[in-house]
Parts: sequence; C-alpha cells; structure tokens
Amino acid sequence: MTNRIPVLEIFGPTIQGEGMVAGQKTIFIRTFGCDYRCSWCDSKFTWDGTQKPILMSPEDILQKVSLLSNGTCNHVTISGGNPALISSLDVLLDLLQLEGFSVGLETQGSKWQDWFLKIQDLTISPKPPSSNMKTDVKTLENIILKLKENKINYSIKVVIFNDEDFTYAKKLHWRFPSPSHKWFLQVGNDDTNSKDNLAISLLEKYEWLCNKVIADKSMLSVRPLPQLHTLLWGNKQGV
Amino acid sequence: MTNRIPVLEIFGPTIQGEGMVAGQKTIFIRTFGCDYRCSWCDSKFTWDGTQKPILMSPEDILQKVSLLSNGTCNHVTISGGNPALISSLDVLLDLLQLEGFSVGLETQGSKWQDWFLKIQDLTISPKPPSSNMKTDVKTLENIILKLKENKINYSIKVVIFNDEDFTYAKKLHWRFPSPSHKWFLQVGNDDTNSKDNLAISLLEKYEWLCNKVIADKSMLSVRPLPQLHTLLWGNKQGV
Repeated sequence: MTNRIPVLEIFGPTIQGEGMVAGQKTIFIRTFGCDYRCSWCDSKFTWDGTQKPILMSPEDILQKVSLLSNGTCNHVTISGGNPALISSLDVLLDLLQLEGFSVGLETQGSKWQDWFLKIQDLTISPKPPSSNMKTDVKTLENIILKLKENKINYSIKVVIFNDEDFTYAKKLHWRFPSPSHKWFLQVGNDDTNSKDNLAISLLEKYEWLCNKVIADKSMLSVRPLPQLHTLLWGNKQGV
Repeated sequence: MTNRIPVLEIFGPTIQGEGMVAGQKTIFIRTFGCDYRCSWCDSKFTWDGTQKPILMSPEDILQKVSLLSNGTCNHVTISGGNPALISSLDVLLDLLQLEGFSVGLETQGSKWQDWFLKIQDLTISPKPPSSNMKTDVKTLENIILKLKENKINYSIKVVIFNDEDFTYAKKLHWRFPSPSHKWFLQVGNDDTNSKDNLAISLLEKYEWLCNKVIADKSMLSVRPLPQLHTLLWGNKQGV
C-alpha cells in the first residue's frame, strides 16, 4: 500500500496570495507537521495540536482535488507546516501531473527531498529573526544549489516584520543574489488572531517595506509584495 | 543628431504596481502621445493637452534616470501614452542597457516597433469594451507572433471593469491561451480623479474579479492582480 500523507486541509480553488505566482488560481493541500515553531506563524494549527491531520492516500487526495476543481483549476499548491518533512510525495505528484495539474511548493529550506525536482514552482522561505528560528545556511545553500543545477523554477521569499528582518534578508540576498535567484519580500502579518479586515494596516506596512527596498542600493531585483489573500480575506482559514 | 523623444515625466525609483513584474523596483519613463483615448485612462495627461512633453535626447534621459537611481535601481519601465508611437528608441535602449538597466515596456498592442525585441519584460495590454476602444486583433496577433518567435519575455494584461470586459478577456484568452502566453487580469480604477485612499473599494473590486476567475473553467493560468501602487498611493502622479 502507498504511504499515507498527513493532511490538515485541502481547499480551493482560490487565488495564491504570495510570491512568484501571486494571483494564480490554485487548490491548496496543507500538510500536517513542522520542524519550525515561528512566533508569528499564520498556520499554527498545522503543528500546535489544535487541529488533527487526516491520513490520506495519494489517490484520495487526487479525488478530493479533482472534486474541488471540477474543471476550473489546473494548479495545486502544497504548503504546510513544512511539506518537506514528508519523505515521499512522488506518487501524489505523478498522479496530479498526469491529471494536468501543475504543482507549487512552499517550504522554508530546512530539508531537502528528491521530489522537489518534480515541482513546477517552488518557493523557499527562510525565516527571519522575528520568527525566533535559526536558519541553517549550509542546508539552505545545498538545497538552492540542487534546485539551480536541475533548472527548477524556484524563488526565495522572506517575510519581513521589522528592520532586523530586513537586515537578515539583505545578508541572505548578498549570499544568494538576484536576479540569479528570483527574490521576494513579503509583509508580515503580526495580527494572526484578529477577525477584522486587516487591509489598511497591512498596506501601511507594505508601504514601509516598499520604501526600505526603494532606498536600498543592494536590493535591486528583490520584489516586495503584500499577501493578497490577507488583504482580501484577513485571517480566515480555508480561502 | 539623435532623434529627440517626447517625454511627459521621468520618476522613481518606485515599485512597479502591475502585471508580470509587480513589485519590481523601477524608474518610469512616461512618453507623450497615444493613439487611444480610453474612457478611464489614468494617464490622460499624456494625450489630453493638459501637460506638455519635453523633447529629450537619449543621453539626457539616461542622465536623468541615473540621477534618480543613484545606484539604487537597475530597472526602467517605459510607459505612456503609447511608447510604440515612437519609431526609434534603439539608442536609448542601448544606452540604458549599457549602464546595466533592464527595461520593461507597457503598450496596448496596436503598433509594432522593431525595438520591442530589445525589451526585457514587455506587457501588451489590449483595451476592453469599457475603454470605448476597438482592438485590432490582426495587428495584435502579428505583434504577439513576433514576440513569441523572438523569445521575448512578454505578457498579456487586460484591465477589467465589468462583466463585458471579462467576456472580452475570455475571448482574447481563447485566441491567445495561457500558459503559452503569460496572462494577467487587473482591477480597473474608475475613480481616477479622487484624491482619497481608494484601497477598500479597489479591494472589493479585486475580490469580485478573483471570484470571476475562480469560477471560470477557461481562465486557468490567468492571474488576477490589483494595482499595488493605487492601493498604496491612490491617484497620486509621480509615484
């Protein structure tokens, strides 16, 4: 029997709100479990025990994705938690791609998996100091090297909450400069419990981030972006 | 003497708010004159006589761009009006690229110029019915064919104000389908005179547009995006 995959939620079609394919219509498969515990994580339910995973076979996942899509969507995003904790997603990726889905991945770059090479758009999002996590730059470097060697369509994306995070991103950018690597900065959402509309406060932060990038001589092809889904839907889960 | 170029404004560095390189730090060169008269044009001052162009040599333009950049920017966006009315931008493009600038172009796809082949990111934005303009699909097709043959990094972007515009975009997408062509839809701003913050009303329209795309079986790799600069700065000119 194929290994089962711990899934927290499958939802969509919706719009990818972040990074290199912002605006892409997609269905999210959110896996359970994370090796990180970011202070501001907007998906703590994937690791804090408040929500339980369902163990699903690749065939069950494909069926659910096809049902949600109903012909309206040809893109799937695998996010977490950290999907890179799952050693084999090969069968799922093969099934999805056989059905015509392109697949995106979101992972922090703390672990490599060979199935990364089957991904169509891959986002590595190292976590800045405000997360209280520590980046293993050597591991990150090895991952980026393999992606590059294999001509995978990938990007680096760093969430920015404050000046210290920006400095971290600058150092990382110095090590992995654009435009050799696609680079995005993203406004952090530090109000992940609010049920309010967050647009105005997030846009103020986005303006701050844009101005930091505009003034910086090293941040040349680094693209600051807001989280589109948070502008639209705040912290609502499942959109 | 090199031909002079009718320039309406040069400003930046700022953030490209639209389309395929949304978020890219860039300096805008806005040329004077347009073959269109879109009802909702947000840059009417490029053709309605309220603002006069300056005739600038390529060298003068490069000097102004370098001064504004001051080492903080390596990207220039040529926009209008319709820059494709200008028969030769070759010298300017060569000068900019020699200085290390990548160059983006925004044009509606009503006229071809051979200098399009020197552009690094090129956006064709055919105008939907709400503009009161009529698309010459044969000309558009020839332009897109040449861009494709020459492996230019281009995209198609349609501004959407209403259902009729969406139907127009669907028909155009049927003729030039994604993902062979990068495709973006953009929320229209129908309040180009307001000095207010437009974010909330624009986000409502963006949600409407996302929902149209989400529900549509043909709009698969078509990415709806807001105008980021209008979310941040409303109708302010020069940002």
